[in-house]
Amino acid sequence: MALVPDNTLITATPEEGRQLAIMLARKTIGAIQTDPDVRAGLRPMYANNPDSLTAAGHVVAIEFATVAAANNYWRA
Amino acid sequence: MALVPDNTLITATPEEGRQLAIMLARKTIGAIQTDPDVRAGLRPMYANNPDSLTAAGHVVAIEFATVAAANNYWRA
Amino acid sequence: MALVPDNTLITATPEEGRQLAIMLARKTIGAIQTDPDVRAGLRPMYANNPDSLTAAGHVVAIEFATVAAANNYWRA
Amino acid sequence: MALVPDNTLITATPEEGRQLAIMLARKTIGAIQTDPDVRAGLRPMYANNPDSLTAAGHVVAIEFATVAAANNYWRA
Amino acid sequence: MALVPDNTLITATPEEGRQLAIMLARKTIGAIQTDPDVRAGLRPMYANNPDSLTAAGHVVAIEFATVAAANNYWRA
Amino acid sequence: MALVPDNTLITATPEEGRQLAIMLARKTIGAIQTDPDVRAGLRPMYANNPDSLTAAGHVVAIEFATVAAANNYWRA
Repeated sequence: MALVPDNTLITATPEEGRQLAIMLARKTIGAIQTDPDVRAGLRPMYANNPDSLTAAGHVVAIEFATVAAANNYWRA
Repeated sequence: MALVPDNTLITATPEEGRQLAIMLARKTIGAIQTDPDVRAGLRPMYANNPDSLTAAGHVVAIEFATVAAANNYWRA
Repeated sequence: MALVPDNTLITATPEEGRQLAIMLARKTIGAIQTDPDVRAGLRPMYANNPDSLTAAGHVVAIEFATVAAANNYWRA
Repeated sequence: MALVPDNTLITATPEEGRQLAIMLARKTIGAIQTDPDVRAGLRPMYANNPDSLTAAGHVVAIEFATVAAANNYWRA
Repeated sequence: MALVPDNTLITATPEEGRQLAIMLARKTIGAIQTDPDVRAGLRPMYANNPDSLTAAGHVVAIEFATVAAANNYWRA
Repeated sequence: MALVPDNTLITATPEEGRQLAIMLARKTIGAIQTDPDVRAGLRPMYANNPDSLTAAGHVVAIEFATVAAANNYWRA
């Protein structure tokens, strides 16, 4: 399984960078818990818990900081 | 749904940058929990819990760090 | 309500930068929980809990990192 | 035990950088809890808990930020 | 009360920078919970709890990152 | 007690930098909880709890980010 889709941090736009950040966060979880059925079973546990959602959003924010720096913040 | 409003991290002012940071944090949650009714039901759970509010503010602080760097801190 | 007092990250001194960091953290909470009476009711809950205080201090530390970078660390 | 495999942060690709970030996170745990049997016993506790998985992914995100900066984000 | 002792982030050595990081973290808590008796009462609650200690050390690590950057890492 | 061993962030290798990051994290805890017997008593509490271990590894990751930047990532 690829941890970094397309093996690059470079994206055309901030929107795509944000999508990549979400993917990076998810792929890490998939590398730790490799059973897709288990992961599917955990989803309702955190998707309905506000603190779990905030924690997930926190990780995406950190991944995005890296992606954004890699892309020089997509400055024109 | 757009994860990055207007598909840019560049804003005219720190105030607008801060608003963008809040939006970025919220859009991520919306991408993970896509049901707006569920999200609405979760809101009172965290909006009345001080630790949940601190955690949400934490994520905004991280998003803002990225937005501020993208804008060279709006230095004159 | 302004999220960034005076709409700038630039301050004259580290002390003022630290005050700004605290303000930034507080304004975010005010943007999420807009009812001042609710916020006032939450205050004793976290101001007497050491982990809540640490979490609040954590957010201030992150906000300050951004403010300090914006001001080039107030190097002489 | 080596804390940094091959004693370098430089990798050929983002994918390898991500693998290194996961290794760095794991090696730290191994340095704190040195008993492999204890570590093996803890694994089901966090691999089936969504918040534990998010917390583990959080650490990987931070390690990756360092590895990515070390590699200048593998820009072409 | 001063939030930043001596109103500067510049220190002569890493050791002094580390001491400053601890002070910065403590001063923030003092600004949120202004009653010294309450603070003294909270101390045994977190000083004997490993997770509370880790959380406190986490904040110091973040403050130190800022102080270290301000001092260009005290490179010779 | 020294908070920064040898009073420098500069190390010869990433491996030594990682060791320093672990030391920095530990020295902070020692500065907050100064009683070595208490610290020894807390150790089994977190060394057998996966979330506590992750939290400790999180702090090491942040300390290492600072040490790595100080050393320009040990690039050849």
